Amino acid sequence: MSSGYQIDQTSLEALEAERGLYGPFTEAIRELVDVAIRTTAPAAEIRRARAEIEEIAARLRGEGLAGPYGVRFRTDGASRAWGNAVIGLRNAVAPPLVITADDRGVHSEFHLGAAYEGPPGSVHGGVLSLVLDQMLGQAAGAGGKPGMTATLTLTYRQRTPLGDLSARAWIDRVEDHKTWARGELSGPDGVTVEAEGLFILPRWARERLGEGPAPRFFE
Amino acid sequence: MSSGYQIDQTSLEALEAERGLYGPFTEAIRELVDVAIRTTAPAAEIRRARAEIEEIAARLRGEGLAGPYGVRFRTDGASRAWGNAVIGLRNAVAPPLVITADDRGVHSEFHLGAAYEGPPGSVHGGVLSLVLDQMLGQAAGAGGKPGMTATLTLTYRQRTPLGDLSARAWIDRVEDHKTWARGELSGPDGVTVEAEGLFILPRWARERLGEGPAPRFFE
Repeated sequence: MSSGYQIDQTSLEALEAERGLYGPFTEAIRELVDVAIRTTAPAAEIRRARAEIEEIAARLRGEGLAGPYGVRFRTDGASRAWGNAVIGLRNAVAPPLVITADDRGVHSEFHLGAAYEGPPGSVHGGVLSLVLDQMLGQAAGAGGKPGMTATLTLTYRQRTPLGDLSARAWIDRVEDHKTWARGELSGPDGVTVEAEGLFILPRWARERLGEGPAPRFFE
Repeated sequence: MSSGYQIDQTSLEALEAERGLYGPFTEAIRELVDVAIRTTAPAAEIRRARAEIEEIAARLRGEGLAGPYGVRFRTDGASRAWGNAVIGLRNAVAPPLVITADDRGVHSEFHLGAAYEGPPGSVHGGVLSLVLDQMLGQAAGAGGKPGMTATLTLTYRQRTPLGDLSARAWIDRVEDHKTWARGELSGPDGVTVEAEGLFILPRWARERLGEGPAPRFFE
């Protein structure tokens, strides 16, 4: 297994320009994903929209496609996981979460709409684990103890309604290359899910430590 | 908490017509999501695509929007979770998985592309938990012992490459309204993730048992 992480040589100006281009573009697709689930438009309108979307995708594909986005990290420490399924700026599957480091670990406020539904009106239990896996992984990284998920345990306390939610995560304890992180996700009625995970720094990343920039998290 | 499950009065013919309409429509959006992550088209092409997508979304929204899709189940036992984040026919966030019951539990073969990336070239650890939560929940339901996720534990054995994958899940044991299910997800090099979960039938669903159709799973 090779690391697959790339050094990002893009200037900060070019990076901001890309953010301004791809951010609203992907946001438009997220809106389309939501509307597609919920629209009550007649069949002819759906068929017309389908043809137009296929045409747009074919045009963008024709201009050239790269592989999966991967993760690019800068020599100044900032990383760009724009394809990531939780935080990816260019990934319409991602809500995307904006995760902020604080003195206790990391936190995020976010909105999950119809595209994240499981039981009626509720967030899918697996989407909650998806979000918490990312949060715990970033908490480990923010504390200087990054790793890949080895185990993850979720305890669901009550249902989580679709809508505005928040989550936080922190490092519980550390042993060599193992980091145990904990976290919780909350809705309007308090904590709905608790999570605990073990994150282990892979061997290739250990060998790289101290030899220049290294990834701060692995998802 | 009300159940939120709706009785589906749609005829089988109308259901098939809807499937034929929304299936390829949502597939076109999934393709767009993938291309949007990976395209190397020039900025002007991205801006043009964004404007067109915003126009399509506005048109479909203007024709009327329902709330989140919910889950509709038929008096013949078939349910329609078309908004579901893992299996939803109308949800472009969902791969979607087609999960089949067998004599041991349930299984599924599926493809996860760039939109499900975590570490470079690999499936996001949280996406793996999302898929397995759905699989275990459906295994519990397929065995006649449905429930909502109470706990879920994932053990990651090796990285899971993006691409063609499979998963299976089965009931481990049952006690009253509690069902323990297990499952595993496999890539080309064998099992990558193991999962165990506890699923509990909610009180409102217990009270409904024997009074007509009840949901067979809860995500």
